[in-house]
Amino acid sequence: MHFTSEPRLHDGVIERDFALGEIPGILWTPESASAPVPLILLGHPGGLRQMHPRLAGRARHAAADGIASATIELPGGGDRPGLPGIDEARTDLRRALQAGEPVGAEIIDRLVLPLVEMAVPEWQAALDALLSLPQIDGPVAYSGGIISIGVRLAAVEPRIVAAALFAGSFVPRAIMEEARRVSIPVHVLLQWDDEGNDRQMALDLFDAFGSREKSLNANMGGHTGVPRHAGEGTSGFFARHLR
Amino acid sequence: MHFTSEPRLHDGVIERDFALGEIPGILWTPESASAPVPLILLGHPGGLRQMHPRLAGRARHAAADGIASATIELPGGGDRPGLPGIDEARTDLRRALQAGEPVGAEIIDRLVLPLVEMAVPEWQAALDALLSLPQIDGPVAYSGGIISIGVRLAAVEPRIVAAALFAGSFVPRAIMEEARRVSIPVHVLLQWDDEGNDRQMALDLFDAFGSREKSLNANMGGHTGVPRHAGEGTSGFFARHLR
Repeated sequence: MHFTSEPRLHDGVIERDFALGEIPGILWTPESASAPVPLILLGHPGGLRQMHPRLAGRARHAAADGIASATIELPGGGDRPGLPGIDEARTDLRRALQAGEPVGAEIIDRLVLPLVEMAVPEWQAALDALLSLPQIDGPVAYSGGIISIGVRLAAVEPRIVAAALFAGSFVPRAIMEEARRVSIPVHVLLQWDDEGNDRQMALDLFDAFGSREKSLNANMGGHTGVPRHAGEGTSGFFARHLR
Repeated sequence: MHFTSEPRLHDGVIERDFALGEIPGILWTPESASAPVPLILLGHPGGLRQMHPRLAGRARHAAADGIASATIELPGGGDRPGLPGIDEARTDLRRALQAGEPVGAEIIDRLVLPLVEMAVPEWQAALDALLSLPQIDGPVAYSGGIISIGVRLAAVEPRIVAAALFAGSFVPRAIMEEARRVSIPVHVLLQWDDEGNDRQMALDLFDAFGSREKSLNANMGGHTGVPRHAGEGTSGFFARHLR
């Protein structure tokens, strides 16, 4: 990992681009920190450039609570090469949705599992690098989507102690099973009328988590309409588990 | 309405018993208030004496936000005479639950509807009396269970501007239909593993609300295990809509 930009200071947050091999990423640290701080890994659907304003907003909230944030580009996102088979799976998904047909589990597997398989080791490598920085010492949480990546990370990565997951994409059956092995505190945000989301799948996933502490926060509106108060609830969740 | 006790002061809250005809009630007002304040009607499952510690706790949180709280005993609760047919319906419910059978809609109707029919006009009469006090001027919210009473009040009582409802009891079909006419902001608390609750019924009710702003907060644990952070979310909901 090496930094690829000078630090930029906005609203009390120091933002800096980095590269982990070929993978671009961004680190945000609270300007005011005098000791090493906890870290939130900011998940997203891919495309760092378009996602930047929203990611920076989430990082600003975390920094206000004395928590660093970091993200990396997803496989196939931004300028990264696409994954084999994903375009075809996406076409099949679109066809099923447009025809008003139920989306077959096999399409969901083809769409999501290759991404999870490739992204999770990358997030773990990023975590290795980030935790070696003097500014950061943990604990670490995962936040956001793609929810299947968050589930796999929560199930396999012991350094992640809490996860706030955004139910906004289809979940393969295998990931649903992995959720039963998750034991860390989980907070799930669900947009009740999310047009691109299967509500029952999100409720089933929430039910599947093996965690003793889990909470679901459902709100009205579509995929990008998460209300401000839901964000505040998520900040409270991180403050409880990271500070 | 007349007061039946001297004011008692605890932790910045003035508590006073009252009677509305034959119905006992309790009013809590913030000690520090210098102008009239908003009001939360505190719903509960009946039995003011046993419920007092929890109700007083909720009133204390509201008072810290400058909001008064009040409650009245339910029909059949405490020393109030039982409702005809309720005991039989309760026996039928217990029998179905013990036998592991689905609880028939007809049992739920017999159990809940008479209570709603009798309680809602009583809450409205209490509201008339409470809003005539110099300390209180509204706006008014309803909080807690029995959820069917809260739904009916939210649907028919225009002075109630927001409702935080505790999904902890069976909901008759007629109430499910009334929920579609509710347009005020609604916040639903659901204990995911509530042994005395039908989770799918609670989710269907949440879906039915006609409100443009509605949020669902589900947490682990049984009926009385609502975690502290869920209470804080509810306080935030009231602060947004009453202040």
